Amino acid sequence: MDSVKWLLATRNPGKIRELRIILADARIDIVGLGDLGIDEESPESGKTFLENAMQKARFYYERAGIPTLSDDSGLEVDALNGAPGIHSARFGGFKTHEEKCAYLLGLLAEVPKELRTARFVCAAVFHDGHEYISAEGSLEGFIGDRPVGDLGFGYDPVFHPEQDGPSTAEYGTEAKNAISHRGRAFRALVKGLEEAGRLP
Amino acid sequence: MDSVKWLLATRNPGKIRELRIILADARIDIVGLGDLGIDEESPESGKTFLENAMQKARFYYERAGIPTLSDDSGLEVDALNGAPGIHSARFGGFKTHEEKCAYLLGLLAEVPKELRTARFVCAAVFHDGHEYISAEGSLEGFIGDRPVGDLGFGYDPVFHPEQDGPSTAEYGTEAKNAISHRGRAFRALVKGLEEAGRLP
Repeated sequence: MDSVKWLLATRNPGKIRELRIILADARIDIVGLGDLGIDEESPESGKTFLENAMQKARFYYERAGIPTLSDDSGLEVDALNGAPGIHSARFGGFKTHEEKCAYLLGLLAEVPKELRTARFVCAAVFHDGHEYISAEGSLEGFIGDRPVGDLGFGYDPVFHPEQDGPSTAEYGTEAKNAISHRGRAFRALVKGLEEAGRLP
Repeated sequence: MDSVKWLLATRNPGKIRELRIILADARIDIVGLGDLGIDEESPESGKTFLENAMQKARFYYERAGIPTLSDDSGLEVDALNGAPGIHSARFGGFKTHEEKCAYLLGLLAEVPKELRTARFVCAAVFHDGHEYISAEGSLEGFIGDRPVGDLGFGYDPVFHPEQDGPSTAEYGTEAKNAISHRGRAFRALVKGLEEAGRLP
């Protein structure tokens, strides 16, 4: 049986590689937005990660015409009532990851170690024009008191899965994919697709 | 009468230009650390801007052997009890100006507009191996709620001399030198030197 082609709504080659590994046993050929020549940006006006991921899946499905996988993710900090949350990418109006991390550390300067709990959350969605199948994944951890490591991106340098352990910017790609909110969401989604009989 | 040579303990050409303008009427030839081939870094272990500036003046006088001018400056934020103060250059352990500004904005996120008062402070020192003559200058202002402008450096993008006016990163060089803590400190120092009969 031939493989079928699905879109992963991203331009990040690392994310495409990661999903190909997760889907290694399925006969699915994962392509990215660049492979299909799609350069439009989906709006992200949802109130939750799931709404944003669904919005992206619909937007790109309408352009690609093939089953589409998408995700939305961010950081939730308990001492900030869940902020930055869906505003993670534009937190405080800052452009660079370094500024967003510094701003977050400033916001939390007076928050003691035991109350600096946080989690990375990811919603992953499958859409084929008819139905949406979704799953969430998260990675619990703690916000440190300074940026550490240079392997990750976003909030990785200030996020520690274990309170006194390395930051996620000190994890290698494989170790990080194994525990990441994104890896967990997509593995759960694939399991859901399997149970629904939607994997070829 | 020939001019005499004084060292301004800096490697910043803009600061050398600024001091030459302030000293335009005196017969003093201002040179920088680079002109004298001095590449050592002075320690800065003082508890005040003045102590740091005196330490730098002594350190570089001992290497240059000519009358030496130095300065130390920083930002004092009232809601932070004067922080970052003498720690302005390494505030929060961050390396870039952008991160330091973002960290400061995070620290002040809950502080209302009317309590966001701050000032740039500069201590300027003259030392000739025998005596120290010093002066201070400051610029009062307010910390904004986001970085604005790209003409300055350091904390300029978040510092507003007038609460709803431009940030010091939106001032041109001349306008900024006219009101800056550093310009004020050095003009006061030159006046003190004049009154002490120490200008050639």
